[in-house]
Amino acid sequence: MSRSSSCKVVGMDWSKRPGFSETSCHIEEFNNEYDEEEEGLRQRFVVVHGAGSFGHFQASKSGVHKGGLNQPLVKAGFVATRISVTSLNLDIVRALAREGIPSVGMSPFACGWLTNERNIESADIQMVANAIDSGLIPVLHGDAVLDTARECTILSGDVIIRHLAEELKPEFVVFITDVPGVYDRPPSEPNAVLLREIEVHEDGSWSVLKPENVNKKVTFTVAAHDTTGGMVTKISEAAMIAKLGIDVFIVQAASSHSLTALKGELKDGIPEDWIGTAIRFSR
Amino acid sequence: MSRSSSCKVVGMDWSKRPGFSETSCHIEEFNNEYDEEEEGLRQRFVVVHGAGSFGHFQASKSGVHKGGLNQPLVKAGFVATRISVTSLNLDIVRALAREGIPSVGMSPFACGWLTNERNIESADIQMVANAIDSGLIPVLHGDAVLDTARECTILSGDVIIRHLAEELKPEFVVFITDVPGVYDRPPSEPNAVLLREIEVHEDGSWSVLKPENVNKKVTFTVAAHDTTGGMVTKISEAAMIAKLGIDVFIVQAASSHSLTALKGELKDGIPEDWIGTAIRFSR
Repeated sequence: MSRSSSCKVVGMDWSKRPGFSETSCHIEEFNNEYDEEEEGLRQRFVVVHGAGSFGHFQASKSGVHKGGLNQPLVKAGFVATRISVTSLNLDIVRALAREGIPSVGMSPFACGWLTNERNIESADIQMVANAIDSGLIPVLHGDAVLDTARECTILSGDVIIRHLAEELKPEFVVFITDVPGVYDRPPSEPNAVLLREIEVHEDGSWSVLKPENVNKKVTFTVAAHDTTGGMVTKISEAAMIAKLGIDVFIVQAASSHSLTALKGELKDGIPEDWIGTAIRFSR
Repeated sequence: MSRSSSCKVVGMDWSKRPGFSETSCHIEEFNNEYDEEEEGLRQRFVVVHGAGSFGHFQASKSGVHKGGLNQPLVKAGFVATRISVTSLNLDIVRALAREGIPSVGMSPFACGWLTNERNIESADIQMVANAIDSGLIPVLHGDAVLDTARECTILSGDVIIRHLAEELKPEFVVFITDVPGVYDRPPSEPNAVLLREIEVHEDGSWSVLKPENVNKKVTFTVAAHDTTGGMVTKISEAAMIAKLGIDVFIVQAASSHSLTALKGELKDGIPEDWIGTAIRFSR
């Protein structure tokens, strides 16, 4: 989140980083004055991130998503995947903390999230709720988890978000990605059209509201290294969240549009100049 | 744990480390042949580590152990402490994984461990048990946690070990430290005597069995930066574990004596040449 330059960042990462001889925070700088507006902005958020290049390689090479934890390669891949994703989680927690966001890493595996045939079987979100109530920002991530049917699998960040949305009933959910939103075909293709509003129906199907003259045959691709389903999973999870009556916005990282969405400013209508994809339940 | 040089290490850390351009493991090296004896050795262990220089500074500077999570300095210290201890946890998990030990980091905070006035109020160990049953080695650590009375505090590794011992009833517990065992005074002092056997009585008091002519007035010091009680906490937690009928051994890291203890070879009696402190219930 952006902040005014006059607001002092209260750094919360006091550890040294590789390649840096100094920590990024001096305790002497603390005072008890928070900017209330800033404080309000960063309250009661949950951050969930995927694995990106951290983890997908380890998981797909060893077949962790297919299960079979007793096989040496799968067991090693499970351990290697968890190391990779928790390493990314720590980097993200530290980056947020350096900006003064009271982030706390929470691994779904350690939190006791279990799946059955890749569907969430049990996931105690009490601790996530406790952390939020304590003014902290939980940071969860796609993780290698135990599966009661296939011994182990990969739980994607998108599935985690949906489960958290069902349990915590947030005002809105924002998916932050590296493209401006959802397109009618891979955005690298010429003439790809950004889908601005998607309406989810009672039966779970969905249709494009804006733009009106969009290519009706929407296609999605899944990257070969992605063990968790890529854009198809993302949209179907987003649609399931929207069906709960929770608005979902898919936006580009580090854009002003992502900030607009994160601030909750799309609640009463989407401005014409906002760029992203809104997915909402048809009421 | 040591291993014969003929046994190939099945590395389980496939991520790059700062300063290393290569990962430490090649997936092609995997086969399905485990050395059964080696496998047996590393099964059904839980590793718990403290914070050492990671965390104590952050915690004591900000007063996290005293509570008051709503105060900006305490909240920042809470976040900074968690970053520091989870960073150490990741390093330890990676070091174990590189040796072929299927280690998985599990933070007590994320696992939902809560304290009340610094005593454990709730700690779901089901996930720790699940991980062990799946052939993984959980690696827990001293952590900053939520406290129902004082909002937050520091939960020491020693208290975690005691709780795990109560719930999981292990055959034995080994405390690995940087000195050969417990002394009758700070081991840096001249004439410090290693206490070889300590007997814990029904009422929780304890006495030195060996050596017989030891200084009866045993004194302990607590380092100023240690927010969790130092050697006094360690011995009183060890005594509480011993009272459950579980033998406790305090040994020096990386010594042959630690390996003897970890292998469970002290079950039927302690050899004269074993160096360390055994703490046992008087039956």
